[in-house]
Amino acid sequence: MIDSETGREVSARLSKIEGQIKGVRRMVEEGRYCVDILHQISAIQAALNRVAQRAMKRHLESCVAEAFQSKDKRERGKKVEELMEMFSRFGK
Amino acid sequence: MIDSETGREVSARLSKIEGQIKGVRRMVEEGRYCVDILHQISAIQAALNRVAQRAMKRHLESCVAEAFQSKDKRERGKKVEELMEMFSRFGK
Amino acid sequence: MIDSETGREVSARLSKIEGQIKGVRRMVEEGRYCVDILHQISAIQAALNRVAQRAMKRHLESCVAEAFQSKDKRERGKKVEELMEMFSRFGK
Amino acid sequence: MIDSETGREVSARLSKIEGQIKGVRRMVEEGRYCVDILHQISAIQAALNRVAQRAMKRHLESCVAEAFQSKDKRERGKKVEELMEMFSRFGK
Repeated sequence: MIDSETGREVSARLSKIEGQIKGVRRMVEEGRYCVDILHQISAIQAALNRVAQRAMKRHLESCVAEAFQSKDKRERGKKVEELMEMFSRFGK
Repeated sequence: MIDSETGREVSARLSKIEGQIKGVRRMVEEGRYCVDILHQISAIQAALNRVAQRAMKRHLESCVAEAFQSKDKRERGKKVEELMEMFSRFGK
Repeated sequence: MIDSETGREVSARLSKIEGQIKGVRRMVEEGRYCVDILHQISAIQAALNRVAQRAMKRHLESCVAEAFQSKDKRERGKKVEELMEMFSRFGK
Repeated sequence: MIDSETGREVSARLSKIEGQIKGVRRMVEEGRYCVDILHQISAIQAALNRVAQRAMKRHLESCVAEAFQSKDKRERGKKVEELMEMFSRFGK
């Protein structure tokens, strides 16, 4: 689970990203150059990646660490599957 | 330049993404499971990619097509550089 | 560590990829169409990703699982850092 | 089409990548640490990306530039589709 410290940080980052999205929408409405719009979108994607990494780190430190300490082989296996699925989802 | 039809479509997609970001923030504040949050972030990234592709398509059809019709070799070269930069920015 | 079963599988996949690289080189030398060459390269990248995922899965099941069972908080922290570094290296 | 200068450069890069693949296979057979193997794979992916970018640049400068100079709207449209397909294939 996401603890309150990580939660506050992630939440603040998401608010900032919301503002960036609004900014891109404005750029589109003002008819700005496509390449400038694309650069802005790529900056938002990088910011979202940082959010994902923050959440992932917390996930590893808490849920995964706990599951791996469990004696239940099946539970450990499930966490590995979950991580692999995430790895391929965020991977190239 | 982004024409009004593409503009409306891109703008509508961005509004929807803004809503998705708000949704993730709520999930974080409600202390939802990290993996569910990460899935949601990955869905937003896919949606942003579709916006980028829409803008890119328009860019190719208008600005790039025009520049490539120009007799000015330097202008054509500049567009190729710009596309390559974008290709590596959005690439793996 | 990579066990012998994973090792054999990964090794076989790498041999196949080697053959694919040779194939692309031949295509280049025969002056084939750039887009066909690019498709082939993208197929090789997908194959390499599958190798990385195989190695990553083994890594999680062995080294990470072990480290997370350790009582040494520092060792667990180091594995998290290592995973995060890999996550961002293979990530978007 | 890939010209002879680009061809030689791409071909040389691919030979080097072939050697890197052989190197990873050796690492696997020697039972090296998974993380070192994964780092090596990520280096190969970066090298392949540089090959793809080289081929893409040539493609833009020759085939795409030519097609965009054509008066045939359908041919220009086909090139845009092809580029978009490649953009999403190599994209995130």
